[in-house]
Amino acid sequence: MQISRSVARDFFGAAHIMKIYGHIKSGNCYKVYLTAELLGLRYDWITLDNSKGETQTAKFLAINPNGKVPAMVLPDGRRLAESNAIIAFLADGSHLIPQDRFEYAQMLQWMFFEQYSHEPYIAVARFIQFYQNMPAERQAEYDTCQIKGNATLRLMDHHLSTRPYFVGTSMSLADIALFAYTHVADQGGFDLSQFPHIQDWIKRIQATPKFAPMLFDD
Amino acid sequence: MQISRSVARDFFGAAHIMKIYGHIKSGNCYKVYLTAELLGLRYDWITLDNSKGETQTAKFLAINPNGKVPAMVLPDGRRLAESNAIIAFLADGSHLIPQDRFEYAQMLQWMFFEQYSHEPYIAVARFIQFYQNMPAERQAEYDTCQIKGNATLRLMDHHLSTRPYFVGTSMSLADIALFAYTHVADQGGFDLSQFPHIQDWIKRIQATPKFAPMLFDD
Repeated sequence: MQISRSVARDFFGAAHIMKIYGHIKSGNCYKVYLTAELLGLRYDWITLDNSKGETQTAKFLAINPNGKVPAMVLPDGRRLAESNAIIAFLADGSHLIPQDRFEYAQMLQWMFFEQYSHEPYIAVARFIQFYQNMPAERQAEYDTCQIKGNATLRLMDHHLSTRPYFVGTSMSLADIALFAYTHVADQGGFDLSQFPHIQDWIKRIQATPKFAPMLFDD
Repeated sequence: MQISRSVARDFFGAAHIMKIYGHIKSGNCYKVYLTAELLGLRYDWITLDNSKGETQTAKFLAINPNGKVPAMVLPDGRRLAESNAIIAFLADGSHLIPQDRFEYAQMLQWMFFEQYSHEPYIAVARFIQFYQNMPAERQAEYDTCQIKGNATLRLMDHHLSTRPYFVGTSMSLADIALFAYTHVADQGGFDLSQFPHIQDWIKRIQATPKFAPMLFDD
């Protein structure tokens, strides 16, 4: 398995297409990959590994002073950070963004919810369990992540009990933002079998034409 | 001092104008108040105090299942949560939102940055110091907030060293989102005198026509 559209692995790549800097195992970076694939965009994917300090080099800090992936650079040099801002830019004008003004605001609501009430618990629990192998000094933090993360999953499951997607009647960036870490929440110790509506929604997303799975073997 | 447009203090208010549920001392709620005032909108402001459990009642959870203020309800009953989604809805089509597609994405970038890399440190330090009076069991968390919050302020100060506002050449929702907790960061132990460009930007925001200050005496 490989990232289909990746044609360069360094900071230069092809000058005429946009570059996305990220690590596919990161849910935040996966959002950008999935959105780009669903939209059939052309891009260079440049893998940077945070755990190896690759997001703290002077070269990368010139792209994103906050030292985080994902980040995007357009062919003319303009740069953008924050996963949910990048996917909003990439999907502008597409079927992944509701045209109705209120539904658009609801989409943003779920994207901000994701960054504030979901990622800090569900992604962090996954990091502690899946990447760090449960160091004792992070046990208390992990336990808090379980409580808060399960509350978030309950809220999501309840919301999905009466509708197929988070906003309106079709998939939007709200689903992509929430799918990224939810579908691998088991890697953080969350039991998705307790959330049947989330499980159905995950299958619905995975059955979308052009869906691209998170990759684990690069 | 009072909230100029607040004409109701219960869950009912006037049926024909939108309701905003919030607590003005909360920076997240203040964003909504400031945006509504800058735009000259009509609304009922209903004060709910999180510390008194007022955001965990069945009545409020029916408005925002996540149990957080701010939340907004339109006259027709549609409801919206998340401060940055609410201000995006309120300001749609106004001068507070860039028309250029890339500048719009940059605005979102700073709003997501605010919720992920700013609020969790700068607002939390303020809460621990200003509202909780520094309980010993939160000292370690407070110290982490100082390190991370100062890094965020340094990044903001550097960004503002070459431009008057976060995006483009005029005030946008990115400024409102970041202003809310930054201008009271001293209440969380941050020394703003170290960040002269942030100080100039705060004065610039405060000098905006129709600017409304955070209220502390309600």
